[in-house]
Amino acid sequence: MTTNRRLALAQRPHGLLAEADVRLEEVALPDLEEGEALMRTTYLSIDPTVRTWVSEARSYFPPVQIGEVVRCSGTGVIVDSRAEGLAVGDLVYSLPGWQEHAVVRDDVFTTKLDPGTDLLAALGVLGNNGITAWIGMLDIGQPEEGQSVVVSAAAGATGSIAGQLARLRGCRVVGIAGRDDKCAFVVDELGFDACVNHRSPDFVEELRAATPDRVDVYFDNVGGPVLDAVLRRLAMNARVVLCGAIAVYNAEHRPPGPANYLELITFRARMEGFNAFDHWDRFGEITHELSALLDAGRLVHREHVLDGLERAPEALNMLFTGDNTGKLVVQVSPAA
Amino acid sequence: MTTNRRLALAQRPHGLLAEADVRLEEVALPDLEEGEALMRTTYLSIDPTVRTWVSEARSYFPPVQIGEVVRCSGTGVIVDSRAEGLAVGDLVYSLPGWQEHAVVRDDVFTTKLDPGTDLLAALGVLGNNGITAWIGMLDIGQPEEGQSVVVSAAAGATGSIAGQLARLRGCRVVGIAGRDDKCAFVVDELGFDACVNHRSPDFVEELRAATPDRVDVYFDNVGGPVLDAVLRRLAMNARVVLCGAIAVYNAEHRPPGPANYLELITFRARMEGFNAFDHWDRFGEITHELSALLDAGRLVHREHVLDGLERAPEALNMLFTGDNTGKLVVQVSPAA
Repeated sequence: MTTNRRLALAQRPHGLLAEADVRLEEVALPDLEEGEALMRTTYLSIDPTVRTWVSEARSYFPPVQIGEVVRCSGTGVIVDSRAEGLAVGDLVYSLPGWQEHAVVRDDVFTTKLDPGTDLLAALGVLGNNGITAWIGMLDIGQPEEGQSVVVSAAAGATGSIAGQLARLRGCRVVGIAGRDDKCAFVVDELGFDACVNHRSPDFVEELRAATPDRVDVYFDNVGGPVLDAVLRRLAMNARVVLCGAIAVYNAEHRPPGPANYLELITFRARMEGFNAFDHWDRFGEITHELSALLDAGRLVHREHVLDGLERAPEALNMLFTGDNTGKLVVQVSPAA
Repeated sequence: MTTNRRLALAQRPHGLLAEADVRLEEVALPDLEEGEALMRTTYLSIDPTVRTWVSEARSYFPPVQIGEVVRCSGTGVIVDSRAEGLAVGDLVYSLPGWQEHAVVRDDVFTTKLDPGTDLLAALGVLGNNGITAWIGMLDIGQPEEGQSVVVSAAAGATGSIAGQLARLRGCRVVGIAGRDDKCAFVVDELGFDACVNHRSPDFVEELRAATPDRVDVYFDNVGGPVLDAVLRRLAMNARVVLCGAIAVYNAEHRPPGPANYLELITFRARMEGFNAFDHWDRFGEITHELSALLDAGRLVHREHVLDGLERAPEALNMLFTGDNTGKLVVQVSPAA
């Protein structure tokens, strides 16, 4: 093991990633400096935010520069170390990027996982998605028993957990997804009370019918016309949780905003953005709660795994074409 | 005194009110039923919400129907009474509508004012505008000492008070107004730190220059492109208080929403609507606080008074053309 394969950004993508946007490189493994460790990437977490990072948009991280490895979170194993807090064999969750090996440090970006941790679950339901769903739904959305909750991208990695957490709070939960088989998954397997296909020509009518008591909490992953439609269904004092806007990230020109934001005045409602990264200090506690629910069989999760580093760009595009159901993951090396 | 002059809605307006949209009627004064009192209107409060009430838009009140008197709040004097809680000579704040005399009851819509109350101030700085400014700025916006605050329609009835309240909290306050003389009023007379004219071709640049520390609290009275521009200047954890959207109420078609709402995610910010009417129980307490500030000379207010019931439609239009500075009021009868 002396070389590292990685995908570097070759040029800024327009819309979906094209083949020429990334370049597969094979380079020598670096010598470790004092304080550094080498992580072998097992799974890469394919999240909408990666698409933002390779654009020029301002975000909570600077844009990935041309020539740099595409930034991406993932799980893996420490295979060499000159860092005090990281030992060979340690399992970690970090930001390895789209590469087989990454130099990491014992800092805020690298979390040591308990021995025996499921490195796949640690990326999704017990990782960023589960934590994001928890903070967004429970802390920001504050759903109360008996209230009406709507979640978009309901079959996705974060939405699927967010909706289940609201159901566990005793809410009536309606999903929104972009394909009928996803809607079936959301109702039949995740246990949502209903699910509406936003690609249906009668979407607005179907959403109205599915939310007879209007909407107390909306957990939005998509933005665009779906957000605008749900704004028309707000209940008094509703909370709109802005988790993402997948309909927008990929767009060449920023699409129009939600014209129905005025409903926030009529219904004394609030719309609030958040980022799970602000709450690092609570990750341990929340992961513990999610693990308990998982062990008790009260939380369903599904991963959609593509095999091989080279498939990372294809995986990222699937998020935007809607071709995945559940958490999208690229397996880079064996988990064992 | 046996007749009542009133302005009834003749047809729904498109854009600004046209002459044919309201009809001046002269009718006999009604006989009072048990529990009713007759109010002589002194001042009518000309607020953007009146424009919403005469449209078909859903609001916190049903739309004014064709043939009905245009709904409007105002102050006046009780001149006849069969209501237990209301005596002849009592000063009241109520919803008389666009008419010289109104039948009122001792209910939630009618507030008795202390003898000697200034019926003009009671409509604005000590009435709905002052209370709206207080709740919106202090309770929803929660500005902290040293923070950066922006207020649109800063020369208007509510914005002028909202900005001064933030200054009293030790904030740096920047106004936005639509005319240079209004900006001068905002800085020179209200004491804001700066004011930007949103009709300037360099508005976006000027706003940026006026908010070097970005914006912690934005009190929005106008919506539209001004809201969108301020969203680009949000600071981390900013609060956007939605008080109104005067740029939108008058529009025939709902204009595009704020495309930059995604900044709410990047900056973990929230945008929240509210309505002062939800907080009736605090009106007394807040009015008391505002009176104290006024008596101490710490709060500047200005009224723009038009004389005569017939001028009410013209006054309402002035709100949308921006031809007023300060609180717009129509005087219907002498205050004495």
